[in-house]
Amino acid sequence: MTKYSIGVDYGSLSGRAVLVNVETGEELATSILEYPHAVMETSLPDGTKLGVDWALQHPQDYLDVLSHTIPDVLQQANVSADDVIGIGIDFTACTVLPVKADGTPLCFLDQYKSEPHAYVKLWKHHAAQDKANQLNEIAAQMEEKWLGRYGGKISSEWLFPKLWQILDENETVYNEMDYFVEAADWVVWQLTGQQTRNSCTAGYKAIWHKQEGYPNKEFFKALDPRLENVIEDKLNSPVKPIGAKAGEICAKAAELTGLKVGTAVAVANVDAHVCVPAVKIDGARKMLAIMGTSTCHMLLGDEEHEVPGMCGVVEDGILPGYYGYEAGQSCVGDHFAWFVKNCVSKEYYEAAASKGKDIHVYLTEKASQLNVGESGLVALDWWNGNRSVLVDVDLTGVMIGMTLLTKPEEMYRALIEATAYGTRKIIETFEQNGVPVDEFYAAGGIAEKNAMMMQIYADVIKKPIRISGSLQGPALGSAIFGTVAAGSKNGGYDSVFEASQVIGKLKDTVYRPNPENSAIYDKLYQEYSILHDYFGRGTNDVLKRLKDIKKEAKELAEEKKGECEGHSFSVEDKCLTKVEQNIKEA
Amino acid sequence: MTKYSIGVDYGSLSGRAVLVNVETGEELATSILEYPHAVMETSLPDGTKLGVDWALQHPQDYLDVLSHTIPDVLQQANVSADDVIGIGIDFTACTVLPVKADGTPLCFLDQYKSEPHAYVKLWKHHAAQDKANQLNEIAAQMEEKWLGRYGGKISSEWLFPKLWQILDENETVYNEMDYFVEAADWVVWQLTGQQTRNSCTAGYKAIWHKQEGYPNKEFFKALDPRLENVIEDKLNSPVKPIGAKAGEICAKAAELTGLKVGTAVAVANVDAHVCVPAVKIDGARKMLAIMGTSTCHMLLGDEEHEVPGMCGVVEDGILPGYYGYEAGQSCVGDHFAWFVKNCVSKEYYEAAASKGKDIHVYLTEKASQLNVGESGLVALDWWNGNRSVLVDVDLTGVMIGMTLLTKPEEMYRALIEATAYGTRKIIETFEQNGVPVDEFYAAGGIAEKNAMMMQIYADVIKKPIRISGSLQGPALGSAIFGTVAAGSKNGGYDSVFEASQVIGKLKDTVYRPNPENSAIYDKLYQEYSILHDYFGRGTNDVLKRLKDIKKEAKELAEEKKGECEGHSFSVEDKCLTKVEQNIKEA
Repeated sequence: MTKYSIGVDYGSLSGRAVLVNVETGEELATSILEYPHAVMETSLPDGTKLGVDWALQHPQDYLDVLSHTIPDVLQQANVSADDVIGIGIDFTACTVLPVKADGTPLCFLDQYKSEPHAYVKLWKHHAAQDKANQLNEIAAQMEEKWLGRYGGKISSEWLFPKLWQILDENETVYNEMDYFVEAADWVVWQLTGQQTRNSCTAGYKAIWHKQEGYPNKEFFKALDPRLENVIEDKLNSPVKPIGAKAGEICAKAAELTGLKVGTAVAVANVDAHVCVPAVKIDGARKMLAIMGTSTCHMLLGDEEHEVPGMCGVVEDGILPGYYGYEAGQSCVGDHFAWFVKNCVSKEYYEAAASKGKDIHVYLTEKASQLNVGESGLVALDWWNGNRSVLVDVDLTGVMIGMTLLTKPEEMYRALIEATAYGTRKIIETFEQNGVPVDEFYAAGGIAEKNAMMMQIYADVIKKPIRISGSLQGPALGSAIFGTVAAGSKNGGYDSVFEASQVIGKLKDTVYRPNPENSAIYDKLYQEYSILHDYFGRGTNDVLKRLKDIKKEAKELAEEKKGECEGHSFSVEDKCLTKVEQNIKEA
Repeated sequence: MTKYSIGVDYGSLSGRAVLVNVETGEELATSILEYPHAVMETSLPDGTKLGVDWALQHPQDYLDVLSHTIPDVLQQANVSADDVIGIGIDFTACTVLPVKADGTPLCFLDQYKSEPHAYVKLWKHHAAQDKANQLNEIAAQMEEKWLGRYGGKISSEWLFPKLWQILDENETVYNEMDYFVEAADWVVWQLTGQQTRNSCTAGYKAIWHKQEGYPNKEFFKALDPRLENVIEDKLNSPVKPIGAKAGEICAKAAELTGLKVGTAVAVANVDAHVCVPAVKIDGARKMLAIMGTSTCHMLLGDEEHEVPGMCGVVEDGILPGYYGYEAGQSCVGDHFAWFVKNCVSKEYYEAAASKGKDIHVYLTEKASQLNVGESGLVALDWWNGNRSVLVDVDLTGVMIGMTLLTKPEEMYRALIEATAYGTRKIIETFEQNGVPVDEFYAAGGIAEKNAMMMQIYADVIKKPIRISGSLQGPALGSAIFGTVAAGSKNGGYDSVFEASQVIGKLKDTVYRPNPENSAIYDKLYQEYSILHDYFGRGTNDVLKRLKDIKKEAKELAEEKKGECEGHSFSVEDKCLTKVEQNIKEA
């Protein structure tokens, strides 16, 4: 009898399940549910307002994904739950929530329905930046050894800044929670009835180390005396390695999902990380870039090295037995989306429309006609700061070389090239610090759709690029982990490596570097590197000074707005702009 | 009886006459003629193809302007030619043509109708760049003293590179011409029947100096032995100071224009320079910026100083008795035109259209809502190279500080601010080199229309800005020179200074610097200056290297195009782009 595995991938806006044939890897059905509450950035369902930079989610949405998508894939493929041997899930991270001892989210309780801190803090909740800054300062002062494992900086997106924000702003919620858990682990808890923490998020997002555990009490006490016992108080549950079995579908979960009680459930994982086996990566020196709005770089190594500016290195963090390195670029697809929204001429939109083409497709076609170097442009890909290797959110975009003949497709291509240079910078930094990169793989929407971009990447990094064969990389990866949780005795596999060779998928297409293009890109990359260091490593901190000036100007604007609003006369009459005042006075 | 003066302004695409009341300065009528041949950039009227960077005009168009616009203004205002006491003309420069001894342009002769070098070379004919480069190199080697008067560089737009190009490419035309004259002087020649050269174009465009004359024979011989006697051979006619009378309307000109024989004709002038008295500037330390597609800065000084990067200093070059300094910015209105053509979102165009607003007006309204510094952007205004103070056509644009929230109006405003910083850099360079600037005046379409831009300029340069009161600044200035050519005994004036106080015009509006804004602009200007020197003075010559790479890439593209075109199969089938090739091979 054919056996199946299910992978469930929780993204920022929706969850999707994929049903996979364990023996062939065939993806038989996919089902998607958009989260009913989406991302809550301005208010809670009851209207309670949220602060600046908040981003919350509702855990009920995660349960809805299970109850909707799992029965749906079974039905679509006409597969019986009896033949499903395992399930794996992956999630955005660090996406965390406060829960009671039995796993009930605080926001499910009536008394906390209107309390923002009781909800899930999505990865992109950035309101804990102050806490992250303080944490990094104190960690540096105390010379905490673990800081080097995270490129020297803990992100405001990670667990401790978010938890500390709760303590700081609502001590009741802090005291009332029994655990602060990753949403990934919470979903596995709902499926199995028992709590586990996965080694991936514990390592990358909660400063946990396989040998050394969490930071010590002295450190937490230095942050805030109330945090001294934070590990025992709020994180006191076992960390299990990814690739292991978390448990089995419990009765309650069987009712929710239609799966059979006893079906194997894998330890939870992170969406980017779980893609690695989905492209058949099975060892060190192979980098996977998952390219979407931003890019996440996953790399396996045989040894632990401190690499400046990476996001983290975690033993068993990606695949068991390897050190998993993570790096990232904060602005890739977002970059191009910004460009077409703000900078592409009306003329081009009309031309694209008249040919029935998407504007990205139209621009890409025009850009692909350009020879390498023909635009005379170089950009720094920092429109959303720099994640790796500079780890600096205060950096901003740079573009040089424009003339009166510069065309939108040239700027578009320059932005694409900038992200390719950024990837080369990350690869070189790994290689210069003892972590070689021999092969390069790409997954995600951009890798799938944009051949020009992939060719540019190949030419710039001077390595062939292999492309994920599945449109559902993370869900496929989770299904792989589901088969391993089941094990060979139940028709699955005993290792991720075995499973990935059968179920993982690559396209036949390989983008190979064109040596002529690479020679020109070598020159352009040198220019990028000079500007990268000039603007990014302190020679000229103009980008930061501009950000300071900007901040002051916005504050001034707020103040003035306040002044005007306080007056009884109308803004039109008296609160003239300075320009008008000056002209009238003249 | 009321007396009148006529000013005729020859622009790049049209000529216009204005009729002015000599006692009140009132502009009674204006008439415009678009040149029938416009600018010939690709071919002659008979289809003869032109080379890259050529820009020619047809001298018949200039005569048509006289025969059309002068009778028209007289008729419109119902003024008799008997009451017109004088006429002045101004022209773009250096706009030059080869003529016979009697003033007949070579292109009027049948045998040269198909010869491009027989026509007028418009100021923006840039095909003599090689000649300019050679000339500058040799002048520097020979340590020619006059080079310092032109900021160290002779432009390819000026007289000798253009003349040398003719000699180099068509020696017959060179030999057949008796004179090589400015179009401005040629028109005055047609009006008076006698040749004069004006001190303004002679000084700024033909390396002539009031005391020292033209460069010596050794220099010209070093350029090309055939040029040794170029002054005697081709420029042998008297230089008359601007503000003087060139002659009187001759019988033939009376027939052409309807003016009376004997009407005073002023020595010709240049369009930008003639604007100075039109805004009542009467002495040193006062700068006028004429702001259009590019900006021209005119400044009077009491002494001759060498100022790095200015376009030229000429005694009596602007107003008699003063050293006239000229500087320029090559990309101002052009900058904004490029931006709205290439970089403004469809959404904005639609919003502007729905409000019935021009896109510039719409963007300006949005940009004027921004506080100084709020965009976080700084740009270098080099999209068309840098004329002053770096004198470097190979520089290109720079913009920094973009984020995913950057809006079109912010970039638009950053470009405007960049041109204001460029103006401040010019002012500071003059002041640091002994030529103070106490007052600032602006003329031209932008000064007239864009209050936000003028306020930004005032805030950046920290000086009040006065605005030309006439829409026809150059033509009004020429009319002023017409009254001076007539003199007081004929109802005119004996000096430009007297005439300009009556006829020159300023608006009541004065843009005064806002100290709060200036304080922030001081900071932003410091950032501009650092980047200006970093990219423009050799610390990082990346902009030039990118231009080299661009040139190579274009050449490569041409070669490849040639290869493809040479094949018998279709481009679609076989001459695949490299991207496609690589994918297929993979």
